[in-house]
Amino acid sequence: MDKKKEILIVGLGLLGGSYAMGLSKRGWRVSAIDRDEFALAYAREKGIIDEGASRDFEPLVERAGRIVFALYPAAFVEWVRTYKHLFRPGLIFTDVSGVKQGVVEPIQAMLPDGVEFIASHPMAGREVSGVQNATDAMFAPANFIITPTDKNTPAGLAFARVLAETLGFAHICTLSPEAHDRMIGYVSQLTHAIAVSLMCASDNAHLAEYTGDSFRDLTRIARINETMWSELFLENREILAAEIDQFTATLQTLKSHLLDGDRAALEEMFVTSTRRRAAFDK
Amino acid sequence: MDKKKEILIVGLGLLGGSYAMGLSKRGWRVSAIDRDEFALAYAREKGIIDEGASRDFEPLVERAGRIVFALYPAAFVEWVRTYKHLFRPGLIFTDVSGVKQGVVEPIQAMLPDGVEFIASHPMAGREVSGVQNATDAMFAPANFIITPTDKNTPAGLAFARVLAETLGFAHICTLSPEAHDRMIGYVSQLTHAIAVSLMCASDNAHLAEYTGDSFRDLTRIARINETMWSELFLENREILAAEIDQFTATLQTLKSHLLDGDRAALEEMFVTSTRRRAAFDK
Repeated sequence: MDKKKEILIVGLGLLGGSYAMGLSKRGWRVSAIDRDEFALAYAREKGIIDEGASRDFEPLVERAGRIVFALYPAAFVEWVRTYKHLFRPGLIFTDVSGVKQGVVEPIQAMLPDGVEFIASHPMAGREVSGVQNATDAMFAPANFIITPTDKNTPAGLAFARVLAETLGFAHICTLSPEAHDRMIGYVSQLTHAIAVSLMCASDNAHLAEYTGDSFRDLTRIARINETMWSELFLENREILAAEIDQFTATLQTLKSHLLDGDRAALEEMFVTSTRRRAAFDK
Repeated sequence: MDKKKEILIVGLGLLGGSYAMGLSKRGWRVSAIDRDEFALAYAREKGIIDEGASRDFEPLVERAGRIVFALYPAAFVEWVRTYKHLFRPGLIFTDVSGVKQGVVEPIQAMLPDGVEFIASHPMAGREVSGVQNATDAMFAPANFIITPTDKNTPAGLAFARVLAETLGFAHICTLSPEAHDRMIGYVSQLTHAIAVSLMCASDNAHLAEYTGDSFRDLTRIARINETMWSELFLENREILAAEIDQFTATLQTLKSHLLDGDRAALEEMFVTSTRRRAAFDK
């Protein structure tokens, strides 16, 4: 077996399971660590992983040359702190975290020589969780962001890129951890904050009878994993708070035009939004 | 020909054209008035209408027993003011306007005896315009709202309902004009205001490379007809302004929890939004 096609996945939830599925299908040998024995049994039975362990997993880690951590950010940092003595020289690992500054710096700082962490973020997800809902089909239309620092090597970068290419992501790009967190604060976290606020702002059980597609689309992501997203929001709190303020100011400008009866100013905002949005449909 | 299956459509744009298409397909005789001779010629050629006129259209109006007005709200009120002397006794007409209070009261007040206006709102649309983009397929999953007042009769209500049933709307309901405008201020206008503000809040030409589905979904409707929507917004300005404030307050509450590091409060908002949104996916 080609050593480069062996991988350990720590955390076999929706994303970890989907990585495992995509890699197994393409001939990789996948092992997994998860605290849920049932998730591991399910994944073994379905051929999503070759082997797995919920405890006594030290040999799996010591043997690993490549690892993907698919844990929530705080659990990921804690896991590395606890078990990094098991990492063998030459190990390269990546993650799937939706925030980068809070994980990249502390983890790269604590690693022994010869062990490399190259951070990455698959911009894919679903409103359901667990390995039972895993599907590598969600990667095909999605973006994959790698966030290298000066601690990374060409070998680390190559690993992240091969992983993304193997899983079939539509578009692979690199950003600094800072640029990633700023960008994600706008395009992902702010949109989730808006959808959640839209559902929380009014309680009308009959809304579904009257709504058109627009409300349905805008609130799809209001169905949200509260544990994961509160952690992602808090990890990126300053950036997200600034994005909320910038968005709020724009919305209040629109309201002022409305109350002033300033039709020309309203139309100008609509023309701007139409032009900018058109760039997404090219 | 069954007189009940003859209809005149005033305004042959996306919605008027889609009504014409749906009714023609189901055996109705459809005539149309539009200022654009090319739209009429296109619709005649494609079998969407039987006849049409851009001027000298008085005979079409005098003959009409049923009319659908598919004009912008202000143009609709103005049209009725100008041509109501042509309305024959027994005429029942409806509209497609996205706001109701500003059209229902003035129009019902100016009508001659024996002529009835029953207002309605097909909750369907597309991000394109014109009869060339007409399609009655968009009605099948959509809601249809009728907004009767004490000026309406069972015959008027029956006409609106038959129209909606013939066009194949998924769900037909009635609301007062006031309740309609409050509801639409929240589920339709507020969502458009949010999408537009989201696109206007930040100008980053490279966003499309990084975005996930959430940003794409939330901004789909930011591609917007500036003439129509500024009119709809202004017609409903007090209600929409209040909805913007209520939404903004909720979003700012979320921001406070974020800056306070209040994870429990954030999770509570996420749990609420998840529960409420789940009602839409039943």
